[in-house]
Amino acid sequence: MRILILGGDGYLGWPTAMHLAARGHEVVAVDSYLRRQLCREVNVRPLNEVPELDKRCAIWQSLTGAKIEYRIGDLTEWEVIAGVFRDFGPQAVVHYAEQPAAPYSMLNRHTATLTLRNNLLVTANVIFAVKEFSPDAHVVKLGTMGEYGTPNIDIEEGWLEVAHKGRHQKFLYPRQAGSLYHTTKIMDTDLLWFYVRTWNLRVTDLMQGPVYGIFTDETEKDERLLPFFNYDEIFGTVLNRFVVQAVAGYPLTVFGKGGQTRGFLNIKDTLNCIRLSLENLPNQGELRIFNQFTETFSINELADKVKAAGTDFGLNVDIQHLENPRIEAEEHYYNPSHTGLMELGLKPHYLDDKTLAEMLQFVIQYRDRIDRDQIYRQVKWA
Amino acid sequence: MRILILGGDGYLGWPTAMHLAARGHEVVAVDSYLRRQLCREVNVRPLNEVPELDKRCAIWQSLTGAKIEYRIGDLTEWEVIAGVFRDFGPQAVVHYAEQPAAPYSMLNRHTATLTLRNNLLVTANVIFAVKEFSPDAHVVKLGTMGEYGTPNIDIEEGWLEVAHKGRHQKFLYPRQAGSLYHTTKIMDTDLLWFYVRTWNLRVTDLMQGPVYGIFTDETEKDERLLPFFNYDEIFGTVLNRFVVQAVAGYPLTVFGKGGQTRGFLNIKDTLNCIRLSLENLPNQGELRIFNQFTETFSINELADKVKAAGTDFGLNVDIQHLENPRIEAEEHYYNPSHTGLMELGLKPHYLDDKTLAEMLQFVIQYRDRIDRDQIYRQVKWA
Repeated sequence: MRILILGGDGYLGWPTAMHLAARGHEVVAVDSYLRRQLCREVNVRPLNEVPELDKRCAIWQSLTGAKIEYRIGDLTEWEVIAGVFRDFGPQAVVHYAEQPAAPYSMLNRHTATLTLRNNLLVTANVIFAVKEFSPDAHVVKLGTMGEYGTPNIDIEEGWLEVAHKGRHQKFLYPRQAGSLYHTTKIMDTDLLWFYVRTWNLRVTDLMQGPVYGIFTDETEKDERLLPFFNYDEIFGTVLNRFVVQAVAGYPLTVFGKGGQTRGFLNIKDTLNCIRLSLENLPNQGELRIFNQFTETFSINELADKVKAAGTDFGLNVDIQHLENPRIEAEEHYYNPSHTGLMELGLKPHYLDDKTLAEMLQFVIQYRDRIDRDQIYRQVKWA
Repeated sequence: MRILILGGDGYLGWPTAMHLAARGHEVVAVDSYLRRQLCREVNVRPLNEVPELDKRCAIWQSLTGAKIEYRIGDLTEWEVIAGVFRDFGPQAVVHYAEQPAAPYSMLNRHTATLTLRNNLLVTANVIFAVKEFSPDAHVVKLGTMGEYGTPNIDIEEGWLEVAHKGRHQKFLYPRQAGSLYHTTKIMDTDLLWFYVRTWNLRVTDLMQGPVYGIFTDETEKDERLLPFFNYDEIFGTVLNRFVVQAVAGYPLTVFGKGGQTRGFLNIKDTLNCIRLSLENLPNQGELRIFNQFTETFSINELADKVKAAGTDFGLNVDIQHLENPRIEAEEHYYNPSHTGLMELGLKPHYLDDKTLAEMLQFVIQYRDRIDRDQIYRQVKWA
């Protein structure tokens, strides 16, 4: 299959590109290096050195013989995305090309506006490019479980059948998110759903939970193929951050009561979810939505797991409850459904001692590069 | 009260500015003349000549002694909106500053992107400016009944109490619109609701139905104070268009079966709804939503009313059912609630023979200016 990966330089985009190329697909990765630029702007760095796409594609080819093409360009510009579609004629598009960090979107007016503009305009351009150049192409869009927020009823998979005054209607599950970043993902869903109905697009919208880990069959081949491992408060995901804090002897930063519960998944499962979505097409005119996570944990549970695993490594791990800089429920009902991807054949990698040990080992290897000033920035929501 | 009218040159913005100025409020109207520019771009003109804001403000002042200040500037630019807020310190903001036409948003990629950018970036700037300069100010935002679409259950006023598997949650009423323009209004609501929760803003979101008419206590004073009366398929609202078609001897253009039902209101009631919303503040941290219309009609019912009223004027009015260029249900359940504004004291002006006669008389007076080529443009949704 000819597959376009938008945001192909990212934490998930690059491993996805290799995963699909390794399975014989023709892959073009597109990125504007926005995330690299934003990390420099807020003065944070990943734990590992990550070569740019030209180098990574060359390393990948030299190791495997398989090819990944790349293009550098800003997908909010029509001529960039139109050029890629025109030249490549994708059969599928995996759309990761968004500003991905909730705390970044809450820093100030500039970062909020950038997030809103980038995420909405890229999604709109993807829709227009598919309509114009590849109307049959399957768009796999990364959404987030955060779109749903923490309602007091079960979270269903994308849709909700509502009974009201004796009548019935199926709606997009009502969404209410906890950051501007997450709100732009709600808007993406609004936009995709409108054009799916109007132009018969073929879309899978994946409501993904926070991802952890760095090792996949492909990234393990060479450390230069590993994706960004951010451990800062702005771009790092929570479990990755906790593991670095444990190694650095920095108390694990739990915000507020720590009862905040989310659905998590291993980076290996992200790749499998994307592949399974690509291998099992939705219909033309269908917005198919899957909740993409494998298990739920509260932040307290994650902290306890990292503390236990760290102790096994002889680390002295403290847990510190900090005043919550975000506006969110710290104790809440949380029961999200997630059967769709399992039914397509997903075999989850659960968060076990071995996984945590691998992550700790990786971070210990890079411990000299940890910059303690990056860990806690107190990005305030209010 | 110091009231800022964003989009103060528009069909509703200008009459609102006069209505509030006539009642002793200090009013600043801001506009970029975007709508004038877009009308030129698609080669349509209102039936009447509409002077620009400098002239209208001068005419208004010479007739009434009351003052309306104006500023010309693009509110997607932060320096423009920040300057206005800094200088004026508004206590209330009426936000009409959006690309307002569903057909325009569906013309092509350029018009879609312009609609998305303009509407979202202005709304975001309004939020940021209120936060930075006037955190207590009341934002009155014009939404649209079109955000709800045509669900098979009753449309409640902004919110829906959902019972699901024995548990309960109140949600923003799920929204699913019929055009990109209407979808940007859904996104506006998403954005406002997020920042109301996060920053304790004070917002009224008015879900307005299609407006008809041109006469208000203030616009009647001088024909140069009348707002744009567009009768083209792109910027004209349906009843205004039908009245012009009746006068022009052009068959009334009903799309498809004509069972499409919407909630309508007289322009006089728009002004009263805005004023009542301003006089009755929501709480800080509250997103108050009203459904703003006074009665529902199907398109067939409107066409029949115009035909009957036109016949009384000796006009020969035909009704023509055209193939529907839009994607919409042509027969559907429609039972929207609209009690909130009535409870605040709204006394509706219903669509009666007198109102239709006034509209017909106005259009007959301008009949030489009707350009038949503007009436039907076949803007296709698909």
